[in-house]
Amino acid sequence: MNEALLSVNLVWVMLGTILVFLMHAGFAMVEAGFTRSKNAVNIIMKNFLTISLGAVIYFLCGYAVMFGDTAGGLFGTSGFALQGDHDLAFFIFQTMFAATGATILSGAVAERTNIFAYIGVIILMTLFVYPVVGHWVWSGQGWLTDLGFIDFAGSTVVHLTGAVAACIAAIMIGPRLGKYENGHVNVITGHSIPLGALGVFLLWFGWFGFNGASTLVADPSLVPSVIANTFFAGAVGVVATAFYTKFRYGYIDGSLTLNGALAGLVGITAGAANVSIFGSMMIGLVAAPLLVEGLRFIEWKLKIDDPVGAIAVHGICGVWGTLAVGLFDTHGQGLFYGGGLHLLGIQAIGVLAAIVWVSVSVTIGLRVIQLFVPLRVSAEEEMGGLDVSEHGTPAYEYQEVFKSSAIQGETFAQRLTHFGKTHTHEKTTTS
Amino acid sequence: MNEALLSVNLVWVMLGTILVFLMHAGFAMVEAGFTRSKNAVNIIMKNFLTISLGAVIYFLCGYAVMFGDTAGGLFGTSGFALQGDHDLAFFIFQTMFAATGATILSGAVAERTNIFAYIGVIILMTLFVYPVVGHWVWSGQGWLTDLGFIDFAGSTVVHLTGAVAACIAAIMIGPRLGKYENGHVNVITGHSIPLGALGVFLLWFGWFGFNGASTLVADPSLVPSVIANTFFAGAVGVVATAFYTKFRYGYIDGSLTLNGALAGLVGITAGAANVSIFGSMMIGLVAAPLLVEGLRFIEWKLKIDDPVGAIAVHGICGVWGTLAVGLFDTHGQGLFYGGGLHLLGIQAIGVLAAIVWVSVSVTIGLRVIQLFVPLRVSAEEEMGGLDVSEHGTPAYEYQEVFKSSAIQGETFAQRLTHFGKTHTHEKTTTS
Amino acid sequence: MNEALLSVNLVWVMLGTILVFLMHAGFAMVEAGFTRSKNAVNIIMKNFLTISLGAVIYFLCGYAVMFGDTAGGLFGTSGFALQGDHDLAFFIFQTMFAATGATILSGAVAERTNIFAYIGVIILMTLFVYPVVGHWVWSGQGWLTDLGFIDFAGSTVVHLTGAVAACIAAIMIGPRLGKYENGHVNVITGHSIPLGALGVFLLWFGWFGFNGASTLVADPSLVPSVIANTFFAGAVGVVATAFYTKFRYGYIDGSLTLNGALAGLVGITAGAANVSIFGSMMIGLVAAPLLVEGLRFIEWKLKIDDPVGAIAVHGICGVWGTLAVGLFDTHGQGLFYGGGLHLLGIQAIGVLAAIVWVSVSVTIGLRVIQLFVPLRVSAEEEMGGLDVSEHGTPAYEYQEVFKSSAIQGETFAQRLTHFGKTHTHEKTTTS
Repeated sequence: MNEALLSVNLVWVMLGTILVFLMHAGFAMVEAGFTRSKNAVNIIMKNFLTISLGAVIYFLCGYAVMFGDTAGGLFGTSGFALQGDHDLAFFIFQTMFAATGATILSGAVAERTNIFAYIGVIILMTLFVYPVVGHWVWSGQGWLTDLGFIDFAGSTVVHLTGAVAACIAAIMIGPRLGKYENGHVNVITGHSIPLGALGVFLLWFGWFGFNGASTLVADPSLVPSVIANTFFAGAVGVVATAFYTKFRYGYIDGSLTLNGALAGLVGITAGAANVSIFGSMMIGLVAAPLLVEGLRFIEWKLKIDDPVGAIAVHGICGVWGTLAVGLFDTHGQGLFYGGGLHLLGIQAIGVLAAIVWVSVSVTIGLRVIQLFVPLRVSAEEEMGGLDVSEHGTPAYEYQEVFKSSAIQGETFAQRLTHFGKTHTHEKTTTS
Repeated sequence: MNEALLSVNLVWVMLGTILVFLMHAGFAMVEAGFTRSKNAVNIIMKNFLTISLGAVIYFLCGYAVMFGDTAGGLFGTSGFALQGDHDLAFFIFQTMFAATGATILSGAVAERTNIFAYIGVIILMTLFVYPVVGHWVWSGQGWLTDLGFIDFAGSTVVHLTGAVAACIAAIMIGPRLGKYENGHVNVITGHSIPLGALGVFLLWFGWFGFNGASTLVADPSLVPSVIANTFFAGAVGVVATAFYTKFRYGYIDGSLTLNGALAGLVGITAGAANVSIFGSMMIGLVAAPLLVEGLRFIEWKLKIDDPVGAIAVHGICGVWGTLAVGLFDTHGQGLFYGGGLHLLGIQAIGVLAAIVWVSVSVTIGLRVIQLFVPLRVSAEEEMGGLDVSEHGTPAYEYQEVFKSSAIQGETFAQRLTHFGKTHTHEKTTTS
Repeated sequence: MNEALLSVNLVWVMLGTILVFLMHAGFAMVEAGFTRSKNAVNIIMKNFLTISLGAVIYFLCGYAVMFGDTAGGLFGTSGFALQGDHDLAFFIFQTMFAATGATILSGAVAERTNIFAYIGVIILMTLFVYPVVGHWVWSGQGWLTDLGFIDFAGSTVVHLTGAVAACIAAIMIGPRLGKYENGHVNVITGHSIPLGALGVFLLWFGWFGFNGASTLVADPSLVPSVIANTFFAGAVGVVATAFYTKFRYGYIDGSLTLNGALAGLVGITAGAANVSIFGSMMIGLVAAPLLVEGLRFIEWKLKIDDPVGAIAVHGICGVWGTLAVGLFDTHGQGLFYGGGLHLLGIQAIGVLAAIVWVSVSVTIGLRVIQLFVPLRVSAEEEMGGLDVSEHGTPAYEYQEVFKSSAIQGETFAQRLTHFGKTHTHEKTTTS
């Protein structure tokens, strides 16, 4: 390949790399916005540690497990700490993806998880849970690749993997205090929809790199289609969720509609290079009711407390997106394009394999973590908020003002459990 | 053209595409920050629906009206739902532009407009109002192009079009309750300047794609000039507004100075590829007083209530930017570069044509929408805020705390109309 | 060079340009988030003016001083107002860098500095303080370049320069009221950690352009390494600060850990093109305790009040990063790679030279500014907050609600000095 083409492909992949990096800002804002202010610093710390520590672990081990010489199509075995020759551009692009699985999990277990248990989860996910699934699909040597499984940018590899881990962790850690009381399901709303909305925009923005640069080359015959599909699946996800919630609840629901964008985006991730714009719209259209009903089913029937809806968004829509390739593939394998059920069956096998592997490995992993550190904080810390107890600072100045005014009246004081305890901490002493 | 050049041009246009996408995040943050917190979810929903639904409508119809085979230079007639061969990269880039006109409008009619009426406006704008103007100027077959009209990236096509529509809509919908009382003009300040400032930064950032990628090729002899001009017009807009407001009001006004960046950016959009850095600075310099006095004139004399100042920013500065090409064009047509009044006259014709077309079509369009749905919400909903009544959720947790503390005293309770009514909504019931 | 290569290098540098632009949004959010809400509009105005006015001054003079024909290796003397032939892409990329030094300073003197004195500082920094250091290192004609000094993207040129200026200014302007009382050092926490965290993410994101595009060419053998190094230094900075603060204070400190990312990023800036990933991790690892102890030393022992920790982050870590090239350079000059002490000595000379030049020139510059305008606002303005007194508007709607409720009780009223005075300002009058 000539020098200029190598350079332009490099620029494309580097652009993708930094866009995927910014998705971690998006996750942090979504998860902070959709949870209570007394835990905002904590969830932000978890997100910063996920991308940071997760990347180091992936460098040391995960990348080798994912892309090293295969052991029977199951996992890689070489290139630990990047020993040997590697394409550094490809490595750093993959590194930004690696922590995503753990990040998805962080939202589902927000507001109650011990940060050191969560650090264990980051290690677990980037050390081998995610890399093994990645090896199956993206290493070129994996058993799912041999089977013909298609997952272009990770509806299964990234999103379903993260969501299954999130589901297991949310069950094992249990719901937040006050979520399920006396047969009631209480809605605990987030503390800032604008912050969450900004996060969704940043995620969508980053997704153009996530899907777009997964082509690895700036191919004019492929990239515009990937970008258009990514965009339209998200767009139809928004529109369909807005109208579906209007029909279902009587109003255009704020936080569900924001999640509708993500539902469409997760859905298109597997097939972004395989479907038409029409196909991408259909994927977004179906993702919307799957999201709304899926969230309700998880929260009300399964009684799993997932504060930001990560399991429905990334799990249910991840499955849908993976299967949808079997329906809408335009290269002759999609059911609706005359391809029969063959690819659909293969896609289902991949989904099941990922679910089984992640469930088992994460369950065992959390049991091991539990030997060293409790999975959740104490009830007292949870009531007072994790920010002050675990990080020494409230997230917002106004929380202190609320507290000082609270001594005026009983009613207001009762609201205080919404906010962090803001004692004069030990840093304020004489020098 | 060789393969590498095709690829690098692709990367440039794709970068521009995703940057323009992010401008919708910028608009959402600006409009949310500069309005009251009781309507923050509502304006965010409107912005999400604008880019999402607007793009679908543009795909189905608007793109064909804009770039299809011309009917007498007036509008396009082919390529509906992208039938036939199309450059998908160009299409998706144009799609991101398309919803901008409606987005500009959303800010001007914020805090009182029925969301279903607004959905009608999105359809109106992306179906044909904006595409017709676009056809005149950018299709290569339009009557304004034949005349020699220059609007590189859309001071008229995008910004003036959006602002005229905004002006018509703001008049027809009427001012917010409490804006004009007993001959007084009340200032209703936004709820978060930092959110608005972030939005301005994101808009400025996205504008580099908006103007920069409008070159469509990564031409080293043109692109740096477009980027530098875009930047310096915004920069001088900020500086000039800061000093002008100091002179005019005695202090450097916060929200006006932020809008000063946008005024300069709107101004440079028509001529970014035609003027020198000096010219771009002059454009920004003049945009500042136009903005400040324009805002005042619209709010105080015309008594049009435009919460975010969209009509002045995008309309007055859009006209200024379009005319300024006739003054500062360095390719021999600018008045100050020896080109005489010829181009200036053509630019004025384009501006007038856009104003007439958009005024008429939007007036008729809104009358039709009014047949199906009221343009504004009820007075009760407006007082309580649109977030809870239309979207089932307040934007911020602290609003609930204010409410609970309000029962302590009359004075505090009177402030409550600033915030959403936060009843225990019906989602909180038994399963 | 062929046409396509010119184009791809252009795209890379333009991408870098707009990413560095967005760093100014990052600085604005970090500085607003980590200071009190009563001064949020003011710090945002200062950041907008820095990038805007700073760029104009740099265009008129600074660029010539930095890259013009040299006067004995000390400063440039030609190209004022971009007279003559210039590479416009290079110019606009450098322009985005130029204002960074002043921006760093703005955080250190936040919450008490007169905005017109600060405008003087912007002019001072971009007119000649920063350009002189830049000439020494980046013009290709400077005495430090001749010596063999290595500072790839500006640990010294940008960050140390900004931090030394910040230190001088913070000393001359003095601490905020209430910071040091009766031998006590009071912690004044910021008003929004989420806003600060968003700012850190935006800075990190922008840093990929800051370091990445400093290559000036999209070279596949260099760029991936620069991007990977930049990322891993920041990542290890986060992880190391989290664990170090846990060890030091008993909890993972929220704001310190966020600053840990910046500490690592400042550290890697000098050597991003010279060290290995392992080297970048070591740089981030050492930056963490330097940050934590440096902050404490400056705040508690030197009693310099730096609200956002800019002196430690950009100064101490800037020195560390510059020296670290002498330790970790892999091209034969690093101490740990068999290169002896030679480069380390040169790096130390560069650091000292920058410290001396910036200290002297900024001290003199501030004395001159003082002749025209007081450096700090009045005590009354500082207590009430700079937003209302200098910009006519509070940053947040909730501040008004706090105020109206304050008349209910003494205790709450005492908290009011945290917030802006929200009088009905003169804009609310009859037309």
